[in-house]
Amino acid sequence: MTRTELKEVGEFGLIKRLNKHAKTLQASTHLGIGDDAAVLDYGGDFFTLVSTDLLIEGVHFDLTYFPLKHLGYKAVAVNVSDIAAMNGTPSQITVSIAVSNRFSVEALEELYQGIYLACENYGIDLVGGDTTSSTSGLMISVTALGQVKKEQVAYRKGAKKGDILCVTGDLGAAYLGLQALTREKEVFLANPEMQPQLEGLDYLVAKQLRPEARMDIIHELRDLELVPSSMIDISDGLASEILHLCEQSEVGAFVFEDKIPVDKLSYETAIGFEIAPTTCAMNGGEDYELLFTIPQPAYEKIKMHPDISTIGYIVDKSEGVWLKTRGDNEVKITAQGWVHF
Amino acid sequence: MTRTELKEVGEFGLIKRLNKHAKTLQASTHLGIGDDAAVLDYGGDFFTLVSTDLLIEGVHFDLTYFPLKHLGYKAVAVNVSDIAAMNGTPSQITVSIAVSNRFSVEALEELYQGIYLACENYGIDLVGGDTTSSTSGLMISVTALGQVKKEQVAYRKGAKKGDILCVTGDLGAAYLGLQALTREKEVFLANPEMQPQLEGLDYLVAKQLRPEARMDIIHELRDLELVPSSMIDISDGLASEILHLCEQSEVGAFVFEDKIPVDKLSYETAIGFEIAPTTCAMNGGEDYELLFTIPQPAYEKIKMHPDISTIGYIVDKSEGVWLKTRGDNEVKITAQGWVHF
Repeated sequence: MTRTELKEVGEFGLIKRLNKHAKTLQASTHLGIGDDAAVLDYGGDFFTLVSTDLLIEGVHFDLTYFPLKHLGYKAVAVNVSDIAAMNGTPSQITVSIAVSNRFSVEALEELYQGIYLACENYGIDLVGGDTTSSTSGLMISVTALGQVKKEQVAYRKGAKKGDILCVTGDLGAAYLGLQALTREKEVFLANPEMQPQLEGLDYLVAKQLRPEARMDIIHELRDLELVPSSMIDISDGLASEILHLCEQSEVGAFVFEDKIPVDKLSYETAIGFEIAPTTCAMNGGEDYELLFTIPQPAYEKIKMHPDISTIGYIVDKSEGVWLKTRGDNEVKITAQGWVHF
Repeated sequence: MTRTELKEVGEFGLIKRLNKHAKTLQASTHLGIGDDAAVLDYGGDFFTLVSTDLLIEGVHFDLTYFPLKHLGYKAVAVNVSDIAAMNGTPSQITVSIAVSNRFSVEALEELYQGIYLACENYGIDLVGGDTTSSTSGLMISVTALGQVKKEQVAYRKGAKKGDILCVTGDLGAAYLGLQALTREKEVFLANPEMQPQLEGLDYLVAKQLRPEARMDIIHELRDLELVPSSMIDISDGLASEILHLCEQSEVGAFVFEDKIPVDKLSYETAIGFEIAPTTCAMNGGEDYELLFTIPQPAYEKIKMHPDISTIGYIVDKSEGVWLKTRGDNEVKITAQGWVHF
């Protein structure tokens, strides 16, 4: 018997091997594995979207600095972000938790306060779940359901040569928030009398602990009658998402470093941590902003939008995927995804 | 700050407290928390059903005797059983797993072989999921989607005074299979040279390791044009499910001990283990058979069915929920559910 270690294949490699035998046999499965959400056709004018995420203590969050209420909010928001990335509207979620007896009923009620707050903000009903014990720590599994008008669904595939690459908000902040929280934890562990030094970093910490799915942008795009030719949410860093989008659309892309939106606070904090700000944006992860493409004629509709940046354009697949740096060099974009194993 | 321990409130108590603030605000939520699956109305002639389950190593399964392929199959089957319990047909699932580096890629491929086999048998597509590392052991979160014609949906509520209580298959076998496997594990741990003594117990072991959702019965009921007035799947033992059904239907019930279907092998094995066979059926759990009620005129349709037993009848709520024993005593039915914490 061969034994292949998980770390040899990595997360994406494992997913590929496990999904190799997935078949799409049901008439109602419009699109299965491979996008931000599955696209199901149960009849009528709308597709049903389904997306699911698993959050594990010690892997995805550290409760020494993650307030449970924020964690509950984030668990919902990251799934809503997947529905948003299909240009859809979320409608229901299920939430399953496994908890060890380390947690009190009150602690779990705090977690659910965050879950209910997110439900309220995004207009979702919590309709089911499972509650069980775990031998260690807390696990949260959320599945989100949503709807999108059939002619408005946006896939990762669909970007065409000449399309403009757009990104919402700014990038790298969530990663820098995590760095700041991790640093303060280490300081605290070394000397429990030290007070955490997070003043002035609120924005970064908030992007890490309580991200918002960009449903605001989805609604604005609808008001503008603009359907992105392709879309993905930025959960693993801009580099990884651009590659996913280009791979599935069978195109290449040019991205301009000086167009990538990085907040001033993120920029300064990155410098303070001696990390290149662009690296935070490209490889940081957990921003939950949206990356999408639009045909050139649609540029007029978004060019004045304060929260949408145009960062590059789509080229032929043969040209590859490149970052034009501030120094006018061209660097091939590569990404490793998150290597948890 | 009060600290209430999880074991003080138990699983059902915790679920009640966490779900207290769940609201049903979305027009598409026909029924939220509280049945085997949520019932969603996305338009058209069918409801969409959603159900989710979490399986945790060390809580729900023990890999020393649980083959991974069977585990994958069971993870799907138990969710299909929830869809069946709404009188629905499953169509898609998502599967998320968290694994420690103790597992090899090949081991996970075995798990997915079981998942794909179940998908094939039940006519389901695997359409999504999440794969991540865990700090300890294996966790599997499955969400199943299904459809049911609006006029054919069966809820836990709906049983009426005079209705006949029916159960599929036989009960207690899965629990006895677990007892046998646990005994053999202990023998093996005490003396690794001993061979497991499971000969002749195949049926019980199979009911534990590789249960089937009773989609066969769902299809037969449709062929008979018989919609149960209420239905639930038997995952926590007959007693617990009868109480759920009676509580939600606001009725009482009389159940006859001598009518409860217990297989001959289960009966003999229970006696060997010095457990009352009726206790295995009433409190054993994991049978994944269906408990349902039908109006009296429908009795003719099922009375000759070899795999459906009529075990009692529905009475007024004020009369309570009782078991008529073989000795002609009346025992009040109580249930604790699974107390994992």
